[in-house]
Amino acid sequence: MRIIIDAMGGDNAPGEIVKGAVEAAKNTELDIVLVGNKGKIEQCLKNCNAPSKIVDIVHTDTVITMEDEPMSILRAKKDCSMAVGLRMLKEGGDAFISAGNTGALHAGSSLIIRPVKGVMRSGIATILPFTRPVLLMDCGANVTVTADYLEQWAIMGTLYMKNVLGISEPEVGLLNNGTEECKGTQIQIDAYRKLKELDNIHFIGNVESREIPDGPCDVLVTDGFTGNITLKLAEGMAKFMFGQLKTMYTKNAMTKMSFLVMKDQLKALKKSFDASEYGGAPLLGLQKPVIKAHGSSDAKAITNAVYKAEAFIRTGVITEMEALMQKYDRRPVRKQTENNENKE
Amino acid sequence: MRIIIDAMGGDNAPGEIVKGAVEAAKNTELDIVLVGNKGKIEQCLKNCNAPSKIVDIVHTDTVITMEDEPMSILRAKKDCSMAVGLRMLKEGGDAFISAGNTGALHAGSSLIIRPVKGVMRSGIATILPFTRPVLLMDCGANVTVTADYLEQWAIMGTLYMKNVLGISEPEVGLLNNGTEECKGTQIQIDAYRKLKELDNIHFIGNVESREIPDGPCDVLVTDGFTGNITLKLAEGMAKFMFGQLKTMYTKNAMTKMSFLVMKDQLKALKKSFDASEYGGAPLLGLQKPVIKAHGSSDAKAITNAVYKAEAFIRTGVITEMEALMQKYDRRPVRKQTENNENKE
Repeated sequence: MRIIIDAMGGDNAPGEIVKGAVEAAKNTELDIVLVGNKGKIEQCLKNCNAPSKIVDIVHTDTVITMEDEPMSILRAKKDCSMAVGLRMLKEGGDAFISAGNTGALHAGSSLIIRPVKGVMRSGIATILPFTRPVLLMDCGANVTVTADYLEQWAIMGTLYMKNVLGISEPEVGLLNNGTEECKGTQIQIDAYRKLKELDNIHFIGNVESREIPDGPCDVLVTDGFTGNITLKLAEGMAKFMFGQLKTMYTKNAMTKMSFLVMKDQLKALKKSFDASEYGGAPLLGLQKPVIKAHGSSDAKAITNAVYKAEAFIRTGVITEMEALMQKYDRRPVRKQTENNENKE
Repeated sequence: MRIIIDAMGGDNAPGEIVKGAVEAAKNTELDIVLVGNKGKIEQCLKNCNAPSKIVDIVHTDTVITMEDEPMSILRAKKDCSMAVGLRMLKEGGDAFISAGNTGALHAGSSLIIRPVKGVMRSGIATILPFTRPVLLMDCGANVTVTADYLEQWAIMGTLYMKNVLGISEPEVGLLNNGTEECKGTQIQIDAYRKLKELDNIHFIGNVESREIPDGPCDVLVTDGFTGNITLKLAEGMAKFMFGQLKTMYTKNAMTKMSFLVMKDQLKALKKSFDASEYGGAPLLGLQKPVIKAHGSSDAKAITNAVYKAEAFIRTGVITEMEALMQKYDRRPVRKQTENNENKE
């Protein structure tokens, strides 16, 4: 099984990426390939005392940055580590992992790897790391959506949570501004009706955002705009609260002492918000597994991403998705729309 | 100055509403009118030892509940305390406060009080109670919007924060899924351009949700769908974090002791999230001040809402709004759209 990793993507690249890849290679039989600047990667391998030939290296000098336009992955930066990695995945790899530019990864994946037949739009699914983890999809790839996309994402999210996270009957919610069936824009109203009628998912209805931290469901579908706002606000609120606690605990000698009593529990709570345990955000709906690791990924996050990629492949999520999505490909109206869009 | 209060709206009605109204009446020269069941209100007045004739009472037996359809305020429940109060405001009141059904209050206000000339849509503006309070508009009244609405809300929010909260040059942000000008749906892209060109507001650009707790601006404009998700998630996250802390502090004797050291600071942090200090959410864009108090309002929240209503009236926000909105009324294309909609 060949896992390709973008060694140059993310805030801590290439050091932490290489370290995480080596760790995964040591613990598995996987064939791991690092794409990026060969000299830098070799230096990182030396720094972490990696056994020789534990990973393969494919050299490229170009890197796509966070400031680059997503579409530059196919144009000015078509030789960047992310683009090279995606083409390698297309031509015989089993999964691709990158902590780089999310927009570019999604654009590149959609056009190089292509969606599963029948899938209207692939999207980014992120695990919100609460006591009951919630897979939120889409988290920013598709700012405008149709009810049909949400319907398909509910199926894809269900398959991922069932197969990769081992949840037996994942519950699906629709993120909305109220619990009543009539709530939301026309998109949510239509999506509610479609989701209610689906027989291969367990739809629990509309979910309000205030319920999210309590884990109201396993899969939460929404448009990429709202998903992005939700994901970042949850992160921002957690960071804010820990910042406030830090200020409070460092106030004086007494509060510093009281911190010692609570230290382990607070650390555990902070760790529970660490999404790296879940091995990154899968791009669902593509013909091959692509995983977006968090921009701030450390070695552990990359190692976990490799493990999740392996589970993604082994459990046959995509094969199952192909079977379920065939019915959508038969819908003549949608086919026509898709074709028109492809012609543009 | 005549302030009309819906005595029957909210989780703690009529007890806390009456108590809060009495407190405000004691401390001001305001003429306060409570609308609702006379017998119940009189009992509440007795319970809080209110001086005689400190408030007026207008009797009605009907109450609109949280489960009622918003439009029922004009139909089946046109004699509910909220509808009676709004008509009294229209016919000679100075402000109206209700902690009842938000949708009904917005629908009733739009149709009974009517928007200021030139205003396309009134909306609900809520203060997010962070260290730097952020006025978020819209919070749920308009789930679909145009860039023009967002432009107008930026002006209205600026006027409110300047006049009622005394912020000298309020900064305005556009809630978006990234900071770059090209981010968001076409609505955000168009709104960005319009806001940048406005010379009577201080636009700081796109704001990502993760920045909100750090107070990136004074006024944050967004559609009512996203605003509702944002507001409720911020509430939900704060509640979740305090819940986690409670579990941690009650674990054993040591943690309980350590809580004593932190108690005051934690209480202060929790209190800082208490929006009641800000006197409720103003419905902006209407010809007269209407304030939505939180559904869980206690007496203090109602008293504060009365004070804020007084400031809302005295500072002439609406007069200033009328002057600024005149220019929108002259735009022929928009006028036509508005007229068409009114005909529907």
